[in-house]
Amino acid sequence: MSTAELDHLVTSAVTLGSATMKALVYHGPGKFAWENKQRPAIQNTGDAIVRVTTSTICGTDLHILKGDLPAVADGRILGHEGIGIVEQIGAGVSEFHVGDKVIISCVTACLKCDFCKRSMYSHCRHGGWILGYTLDGTQAEYVRIPQADGSLYHFPAGADEEAMVMLSDILPTGFECGVLNGRVKPGDTVAIVGAGPVGLAVLLTAQFYSPAAIFMIDLDDNRLAVARKFGATNLINSSNGHAARQVMELTDGAGVDVAIEVVGLPATFEICQSIVAAGGRIANVGVHGKPVELHMEKLWDRNISLTTRLVDTVTTPMLLKVVRSGKLQPSKLVTHRFAMDDILKAYDTFGNAAKEGALKVVLTNKAPH
Amino acid sequence: MSTAELDHLVTSAVTLGSATMKALVYHGPGKFAWENKQRPAIQNTGDAIVRVTTSTICGTDLHILKGDLPAVADGRILGHEGIGIVEQIGAGVSEFHVGDKVIISCVTACLKCDFCKRSMYSHCRHGGWILGYTLDGTQAEYVRIPQADGSLYHFPAGADEEAMVMLSDILPTGFECGVLNGRVKPGDTVAIVGAGPVGLAVLLTAQFYSPAAIFMIDLDDNRLAVARKFGATNLINSSNGHAARQVMELTDGAGVDVAIEVVGLPATFEICQSIVAAGGRIANVGVHGKPVELHMEKLWDRNISLTTRLVDTVTTPMLLKVVRSGKLQPSKLVTHRFAMDDILKAYDTFGNAAKEGALKVVLTNKAPH
Amino acid sequence: MSTAELDHLVTSAVTLGSATMKALVYHGPGKFAWENKQRPAIQNTGDAIVRVTTSTICGTDLHILKGDLPAVADGRILGHEGIGIVEQIGAGVSEFHVGDKVIISCVTACLKCDFCKRSMYSHCRHGGWILGYTLDGTQAEYVRIPQADGSLYHFPAGADEEAMVMLSDILPTGFECGVLNGRVKPGDTVAIVGAGPVGLAVLLTAQFYSPAAIFMIDLDDNRLAVARKFGATNLINSSNGHAARQVMELTDGAGVDVAIEVVGLPATFEICQSIVAAGGRIANVGVHGKPVELHMEKLWDRNISLTTRLVDTVTTPMLLKVVRSGKLQPSKLVTHRFAMDDILKAYDTFGNAAKEGALKVVLTNKAPH
Amino acid sequence: MSTAELDHLVTSAVTLGSATMKALVYHGPGKFAWENKQRPAIQNTGDAIVRVTTSTICGTDLHILKGDLPAVADGRILGHEGIGIVEQIGAGVSEFHVGDKVIISCVTACLKCDFCKRSMYSHCRHGGWILGYTLDGTQAEYVRIPQADGSLYHFPAGADEEAMVMLSDILPTGFECGVLNGRVKPGDTVAIVGAGPVGLAVLLTAQFYSPAAIFMIDLDDNRLAVARKFGATNLINSSNGHAARQVMELTDGAGVDVAIEVVGLPATFEICQSIVAAGGRIANVGVHGKPVELHMEKLWDRNISLTTRLVDTVTTPMLLKVVRSGKLQPSKLVTHRFAMDDILKAYDTFGNAAKEGALKVVLTNKAPH
Repeated sequence: MSTAELDHLVTSAVTLGSATMKALVYHGPGKFAWENKQRPAIQNTGDAIVRVTTSTICGTDLHILKGDLPAVADGRILGHEGIGIVEQIGAGVSEFHVGDKVIISCVTACLKCDFCKRSMYSHCRHGGWILGYTLDGTQAEYVRIPQADGSLYHFPAGADEEAMVMLSDILPTGFECGVLNGRVKPGDTVAIVGAGPVGLAVLLTAQFYSPAAIFMIDLDDNRLAVARKFGATNLINSSNGHAARQVMELTDGAGVDVAIEVVGLPATFEICQSIVAAGGRIANVGVHGKPVELHMEKLWDRNISLTTRLVDTVTTPMLLKVVRSGKLQPSKLVTHRFAMDDILKAYDTFGNAAKEGALKVVLTNKAPH
Repeated sequence: MSTAELDHLVTSAVTLGSATMKALVYHGPGKFAWENKQRPAIQNTGDAIVRVTTSTICGTDLHILKGDLPAVADGRILGHEGIGIVEQIGAGVSEFHVGDKVIISCVTACLKCDFCKRSMYSHCRHGGWILGYTLDGTQAEYVRIPQADGSLYHFPAGADEEAMVMLSDILPTGFECGVLNGRVKPGDTVAIVGAGPVGLAVLLTAQFYSPAAIFMIDLDDNRLAVARKFGATNLINSSNGHAARQVMELTDGAGVDVAIEVVGLPATFEICQSIVAAGGRIANVGVHGKPVELHMEKLWDRNISLTTRLVDTVTTPMLLKVVRSGKLQPSKLVTHRFAMDDILKAYDTFGNAAKEGALKVVLTNKAPH
Repeated sequence: MSTAELDHLVTSAVTLGSATMKALVYHGPGKFAWENKQRPAIQNTGDAIVRVTTSTICGTDLHILKGDLPAVADGRILGHEGIGIVEQIGAGVSEFHVGDKVIISCVTACLKCDFCKRSMYSHCRHGGWILGYTLDGTQAEYVRIPQADGSLYHFPAGADEEAMVMLSDILPTGFECGVLNGRVKPGDTVAIVGAGPVGLAVLLTAQFYSPAAIFMIDLDDNRLAVARKFGATNLINSSNGHAARQVMELTDGAGVDVAIEVVGLPATFEICQSIVAAGGRIANVGVHGKPVELHMEKLWDRNISLTTRLVDTVTTPMLLKVVRSGKLQPSKLVTHRFAMDDILKAYDTFGNAAKEGALKVVLTNKAPH
Repeated sequence: MSTAELDHLVTSAVTLGSATMKALVYHGPGKFAWENKQRPAIQNTGDAIVRVTTSTICGTDLHILKGDLPAVADGRILGHEGIGIVEQIGAGVSEFHVGDKVIISCVTACLKCDFCKRSMYSHCRHGGWILGYTLDGTQAEYVRIPQADGSLYHFPAGADEEAMVMLSDILPTGFECGVLNGRVKPGDTVAIVGAGPVGLAVLLTAQFYSPAAIFMIDLDDNRLAVARKFGATNLINSSNGHAARQVMELTDGAGVDVAIEVVGLPATFEICQSIVAAGGRIANVGVHGKPVELHMEKLWDRNISLTTRLVDTVTTPMLLKVVRSGKLQPSKLVTHRFAMDDILKAYDTFGNAAKEGALKVVLTNKAPH
């Protein structure tokens, strides 16, 4: 580290705590603002304070703003994705040092509880998804990351921040909940229902396993056109209500080996049930707000499996290796870029994704003075 | 083989075809009779004709008699479980010889189709469950077994017919659909919903993997008492509607690692959903006639899996090894015994299982004259 | 089928049996000839007679010619790879018909024995590798395929014979023994020791799983150059004896996740032992003639696995799907083409592979008159 | 925490560090003594100081005393197994509190490094097996446990210390290296070569998976007699050099599904190679000092796997559940008991295991004044 960098860190350390910062703050359904907040400080030995350089917006953030997640309190800073620089660490942090550039995982993991020991970080007894949910998040200049050793990853030297911020959430989500749970194998026929950013992350990472065909199903032809570029072999616009029939025709009545639900609605879940082949897998990625009807009278003897999962982010090290090898270009998912100061515009764009042709919208903080 | 045996076989071969036999014949909902039928003959190179020595009745047979399975035609001989002696074989049968004592599998497997090659015999393109369903079955003196090399198993020398006939269906069904699909592991907490014969087969075979606790849930205290003797660690009578709550209390709110549904009703499926732990498995064994409500709004982030399966009987060789080693006594499941001639009485007993305290009812054919 | 085709088949059927054909016949170490032999005839109900259209030569054939495999009798027709047309079938063959175009597997599988039922066709009690070894093979105009339903695969409509004949042996061998046994995963670092045709088949099929790096190790720079074109990320010429050291340097001392041996010599096996990372896998593909020294004093606490395997060809259906999807172009492996009549020249070329730059040498039979 | 407890802790903290304790100290090959040492103190935030109540001696301790492990320095306190009470914790310890009764794992795990995240605690970059090896161990009154959250387990209320101390090392070692790596399945035939304490731990834990037969092979008839009591189905005294032949006869020439090496010598490894069935597994548990000859000329086409492993102790939570359920009585392994003060006698007994009929020798510290 250069002397200049050290100076900066010392200054930062002095100013942290008393200083303020800008952040996107939620104030109840429909209300949010880019406003001043106190900078976060170390609270526990496992904490790290990270200066956020890049963040992005998730569909879940829109749900929070609509008031769909009542657990989010007034005053909460949103955001669970980000890249940044470690500014301070607690005494128990061993894997990261001040000045390290890091990827912030959307899931916080203590690594010590029974769930973490089973690699189910999503259900960590001291963490899980808490950033921008029950704890202040990354759409800010600074963020406190608890259990930093389990919740941060080293940013690969020379990598692209825009690409790497896709590793905070959507790539592991698509890969773990969709591809791994769906056990995609070479030669498989895969259907992905939902071509939003996470559906496209499923599409990109499904190709790690060389399936023979990937059917992409969505209501939006623009998103389907993107899916084609990203490797989908067949596009199906489901607005006519015949998606399931089309899949069955394309598969000579057999159905697909893997059906991946990335929407979270009864209608899209219904498609998955209708198209899964005997011996096939339904992997659910979508966030559901209502029960679905499961046709056990048809499925009981079909030898299928159905899985659900909140992303564990345990595959982040694997995904980092694949990205570094050049076999995956996550920056393809980025369609729009904003300065963090313009985050309200960014939300506007992301909130009108169909009209704006938006997939992932990247937010960049200016370097500190 | 002795000369006497050879003589018998020659006589049998001469008389087969023209001769008649007794069989349990279905004549539409509620109608069936023990009557004369023509003895079956070899039709294809892969066929074997088996003289049935022991058979048994399955819950599915009761469903057929009620008319719940309209695919069963008037005139069909029922039964898909049995032990017998091979009387004749087609030219293509290589693994069995005339005179061999065999276990008849409830699932017929060609071994050659894509499903069979993937060990999914249940979906065999030339077989699957057909005996006593779309083809004449085993509740008779003789039965034609198509694809004999894939559908018969050698009866272990010195074994007990009563025990072995449990390998035709309920042991592989409980083991494959419940225990294997539920991935029961040492130390697991397992709940089995339904303590009928198949539920008890799940209970017996779950113990192959040394779970720490097995909760048995049923409406019938007598069956629960049997479950206790068979190794259940906790008994829950669900008639008060509080089974799920009791399980959650017994597990300190965590739920069970594996919930196995062996009834086939929305209410029992609901229990399984309510008690499965984060990271747990629901394995469905029951035959369902109606859709169920699946609480995806609660389950989407619980990292669970749900499986369905029609028994493949691919574990029959493994089960045979375990039975021969003495680690499993399937004859425990037998509560009543009848001569095959008394099959109508046997149905009466099995049809009033709760009152009669019946589990499996064994039927024995007299040796031929 | 056209009338002309039918006519041809009728003629074939008439002439088969009495007629002769040309074949490559082994007459003891170093002696072989392209000579007349009687055409094969159906012997068992499961047999098929296939008219060979395309074949190829395997390294194993060279070993046979040198006398390394004493089980090969004088008079044996060599060859275990091929594409052809079914000319006749036995009464028990159900999955193939006269006139079907087929891929001949190097492994014959009855599908009925205990090993076949466990998907270990290589150890089939009635088959395994027998073609061109203990039974007459495919370097001929006609070949008898026993257990045809388990030993043939349908040739995909419109596919390329030259590509498809790679599915007879080297693609499943590389894939099953190397890639599957090595459990290659996305992001893995893989080393392949031996860049001959089978090593290159490992290289091509390893990429189904998106490893981050593939090191190719060989003595021949030409073969390494081919490996580069086929996707190897690093080339290591081991002639200086420092291959292991180079690998350790390239991996910062960690070693590789998967080391795949495709030579069959103590020295190359030694490299694999030296470079496998803690927690890594050594997958042996090579045919060994001598014991190797295994450094258990270094490996006992390294959490490694070492696997051996004779190809089972159980993945042929999967490989067919991948090839049909265009994700794998096996014809890349073909460097030379000969008419079957020129098979002696073909052997000459293949026997001087380094000098000739030969990988796979394809042999084509003229269409019958 | 009560004021009284706090007082006690303050007192402990004051006295620890300055105070002395008794410990078994190594002073080079053949030299060791039960002598005074300074009590350990907290050095890092993750440390815990544990007052040892129960310990035991491992075969590895004997190897250290002989000088076989030169990495062990003069002055080192031996012992890597133990039960105790947490006396002090560092600021970063979250899963344990002062006063907790704990099982000390023989493997120290930081839980944060790449190996720990892959559940390979044995290769932890900050831990692994270090206790009583490169760090002072448990054959003392007090021990400092680094990375306490990853290296201690809660002692189950009401359990037996003598039984639980078997969970420090030999039960997870036998289970992970032998049973899990050997993939023991219901119905399998298993051979265990070596009936010492770890071999017997393999025997006990192999039964979690209901194998049909377990052959126990050893030179000592007394140990074989113990194996019989512990569930071995066949005993083979290998002193006549015919163990492999006997196994092959017992298996009708097929060999065993799983061969588990628990000795660490070329001769016993040779037996495993000779008896493994096609498709079988060799799981190595023994510590090897020399290379072995691996018969690749016989094994290359046998579809076997061979695994090595240093125990990771990741199955400790599972083993705790099984022990608590009563399905495993580890105290069976204990043959002798000594006060810790008599540790030299205990070593004498354990060092003459055959003569003394010794398996595990338990050491108990007096409660502190």
